[in-house]
Amino acid sequence: MAKKPNKLKARLPRGFVDRSAGDIRATDEMLAKIRAVYEQYGFDPVETPAFEYTDCLGKFLPDTDRPNAGVFSVQDEDEQWMSLRYDLTAPLARHVSELINEIQMPYRTYRAGWVFRNEKPGPGRFRQFMQFDADTVGAPGVQADAEMCMMMADTMEALGIPRGDYVIRVNNRKVLDGVLEAIGLGGEEHEERRLTVLRAIDKLDKFGSEGVLQLLGVGRKDESGDFTKGAGLGERQASFVVKVVTNERFVDGVDEMEFNEAAKQTAGFTDGFADLDTIREIVRACGYGEDRIKIDPSVVRGLEYYTGCVFEAELLFDVTNEKGEVVQFGSVGGGGRYDGLVKRFTGRDVPATGFSIGVSRLMTALKNLGKLGTADVVAPVLVTVMDGDVAALGRYQKMVQDLRQAGIRAEMYQGNWKKFGNQLKYADRRNCPVAIIQGSDEREAGEIQVKDLIEGKRLSEEITDNITWRESRPAQITVKEADLVGTVRSILDGQADDRKRASEA
Amino acid sequence: MAKKPNKLKARLPRGFVDRSAGDIRATDEMLAKIRAVYEQYGFDPVETPAFEYTDCLGKFLPDTDRPNAGVFSVQDEDEQWMSLRYDLTAPLARHVSELINEIQMPYRTYRAGWVFRNEKPGPGRFRQFMQFDADTVGAPGVQADAEMCMMMADTMEALGIPRGDYVIRVNNRKVLDGVLEAIGLGGEEHEERRLTVLRAIDKLDKFGSEGVLQLLGVGRKDESGDFTKGAGLGERQASFVVKVVTNERFVDGVDEMEFNEAAKQTAGFTDGFADLDTIREIVRACGYGEDRIKIDPSVVRGLEYYTGCVFEAELLFDVTNEKGEVVQFGSVGGGGRYDGLVKRFTGRDVPATGFSIGVSRLMTALKNLGKLGTADVVAPVLVTVMDGDVAALGRYQKMVQDLRQAGIRAEMYQGNWKKFGNQLKYADRRNCPVAIIQGSDEREAGEIQVKDLIEGKRLSEEITDNITWRESRPAQITVKEADLVGTVRSILDGQADDRKRASEA
Repeated sequence: MAKKPNKLKARLPRGFVDRSAGDIRATDEMLAKIRAVYEQYGFDPVETPAFEYTDCLGKFLPDTDRPNAGVFSVQDEDEQWMSLRYDLTAPLARHVSELINEIQMPYRTYRAGWVFRNEKPGPGRFRQFMQFDADTVGAPGVQADAEMCMMMADTMEALGIPRGDYVIRVNNRKVLDGVLEAIGLGGEEHEERRLTVLRAIDKLDKFGSEGVLQLLGVGRKDESGDFTKGAGLGERQASFVVKVVTNERFVDGVDEMEFNEAAKQTAGFTDGFADLDTIREIVRACGYGEDRIKIDPSVVRGLEYYTGCVFEAELLFDVTNEKGEVVQFGSVGGGGRYDGLVKRFTGRDVPATGFSIGVSRLMTALKNLGKLGTADVVAPVLVTVMDGDVAALGRYQKMVQDLRQAGIRAEMYQGNWKKFGNQLKYADRRNCPVAIIQGSDEREAGEIQVKDLIEGKRLSEEITDNITWRESRPAQITVKEADLVGTVRSILDGQADDRKRASEA
Repeated sequence: MAKKPNKLKARLPRGFVDRSAGDIRATDEMLAKIRAVYEQYGFDPVETPAFEYTDCLGKFLPDTDRPNAGVFSVQDEDEQWMSLRYDLTAPLARHVSELINEIQMPYRTYRAGWVFRNEKPGPGRFRQFMQFDADTVGAPGVQADAEMCMMMADTMEALGIPRGDYVIRVNNRKVLDGVLEAIGLGGEEHEERRLTVLRAIDKLDKFGSEGVLQLLGVGRKDESGDFTKGAGLGERQASFVVKVVTNERFVDGVDEMEFNEAAKQTAGFTDGFADLDTIREIVRACGYGEDRIKIDPSVVRGLEYYTGCVFEAELLFDVTNEKGEVVQFGSVGGGGRYDGLVKRFTGRDVPATGFSIGVSRLMTALKNLGKLGTADVVAPVLVTVMDGDVAALGRYQKMVQDLRQAGIRAEMYQGNWKKFGNQLKYADRRNCPVAIIQGSDEREAGEIQVKDLIEGKRLSEEITDNITWRESRPAQITVKEADLVGTVRSILDGQADDRKRASEA
């Protein structure tokens, strides 16, 4: 009746989650496959800690609608601000800069790690999540970007994602920058409008050219009647933008000659298309077709530190989202060239390129495809406790240790042993394959009972399936103590055969 | 001349470090071995995030000489305080409490993760470090503590630490609590003096009984003349304390009868020794002798949440510390029973026990023993770039992809290709086993040069060693393009044979 007033409520801050055994095993399985690809490509692991000085991280996050600009920050003893990293790229730039005289360039490294965003959490949007990055630092040529794209494609295939179900889309920041400058949106005073234009371009997949034209102009009304205000571009400006971002090669001779000429006179527009051409040729020479790596000038990536090529790994199969709509799964990672990040520290040009995989998102995708959790972890054999005196506990525990030493996963029941029913309920819920029982009668006879719990379940159900039918094994046998390990092993082997047969059926 | 004034300094906050490829690979190798033992014992992985609400973590850290009591804390949007976890036990208690109605007890889980301490960093003392924990929650009996001790011992052996080089020392908090109460140091008002007594006991290894008696009394002067003030106990009090903590069984009939009787009347003194007896009997029945698991009433563990048995894994071999002194390596982990942590949330008794391994410290120890880094990671084959036009880049990259698809670690040189010497210097520093070269002459002939870089080095040194002598291979050969993969593979196989022979010699 009387609730204790001071009882603490067990809860997590929003946007943080615990990870279950299944999720951890699936993630580890996935990370191992990704790591194998990165290693094959000649990358080595290097990691940085969770904290950096805030000024070292810089302010490159797109989402700055919170007072501390999307990061978690604390003040150190000497009043300097430190922040938890929001990605793995800014810390890598600090690491390289600190060791610039010792590191052998090009520096090819990979790392998986937790990153933190002080953002508003939402469905599938966490404040702590894992990224898995690979970077080449000290690589000026676009061939390094091409390699990144191929590595992303190979990673998708190593994870079992069928060809056709993923694509690596590639663009170059310089192309979009040139377009924006050409239509008169250069300069700081147009920053906000540039963002609106980029957001509109980002919707090309969803709304098509017609929708984007509306978003670039006065605005767009969706089916429900909701109106999104547009970027306010003139018709010819908007049409030029759409023409560029829907062509994968340099657009020449299009109607909007004025913008085209203006674009060509920007620092990067023509170069940007030339870089894309080079990437296309290199990857095609290596056998990667358009179905795997696609040049796509409509790719917009949020982070502000990119200076050249940007790429995105997208999954193309359909899933049902939290609103019940069928949508393409979408992006599971991306990256690009960030030639300015190391220069912030060293003053030297140290060109770099890399990409990042969103680990939880990719894992969700692989679960959808049924590509994870194939590792077959068998629950432990349970040695039950019939008698709790010290000598008996020693004997039960010895059985467990004997099983373990023989390589068999096993445990003694560690709860309150007095209710035997609870022990069998525990074995059942935990999905234990075998239970060992020794009461005083068996002990005097030097014997133990070995229960095949899987067979027991099977016998208690009706066998309707011809394919998996076989003669039943005994669900329980009594053997000499010395035969414990051998008996358990042969039951486990039989169960493994059954699983194999069932999965092949 | 003119230094840029705004150049950012690349540096890490004190107490945080980057991890090199060697350290990461060694840690991963070690974690995999530990994980295999925990799995064998029937534990499953479960993880919690880095942040918890500050009140959920509680204040159990021994080091509270900083304003925010040793943790890193930030305020959430709704002004609630969150902290980075300082260990993995308090978060587990929150996790179990939150899911108390869904979890099947006993709940046997393990987790490796980063923890954070806002402490003054020092040599070997970091503000971010990794722990690897295992816990059984919902296990009231001391047999669960016994299992933890055996698992720690098995873990040490699985890591290759020879028997005799480690020991698991076991004590019970209730014994020390009874002693302190019996000598008149119960109650809140004596908290500080109790701490001084515990710190004195903790020095038994270092100073012996005599030194501890001094520290419990007026104080102790060391060889350099430095004086440490003592706990101010009377002679008979101090002598009783030392008698108890230097006996591994219940002390009866000693001189200090008054204290002995008083101790027996405390809540736990007699029970504490009975628990230790039970642990001894169980582990001995399972074949674990005193050389592996030792009852030792002088073990003091810092964290305040322990309520019963405590244990510590110590490495006994000598190392030279940062002051140049030869010392025993000491503790690499420990744990104990924490029956009150879940009750803080649920109001229910949920007894639990577990232990934690200090991952970096243990890795340092294993490196000292030469037990890590045996995994033989070969650097990538380097395909050099003689010509940087797009078509040539495509051809070089294609060779790389062919090697990778054949399972051979390879990369194209991604730096500025124009200085060929830099490419070979890169291959040398990176320890690449093979370099591939194709200039225009070779290309026209459909050929490539394959350089065996290890053999090249070998031939340039004098061969003085009979055991590893063999006929030399050619350091460079020219083959048809179609023979690239086969040629590289046979060179790599030859190098692997050489390494094997050298390690067996």
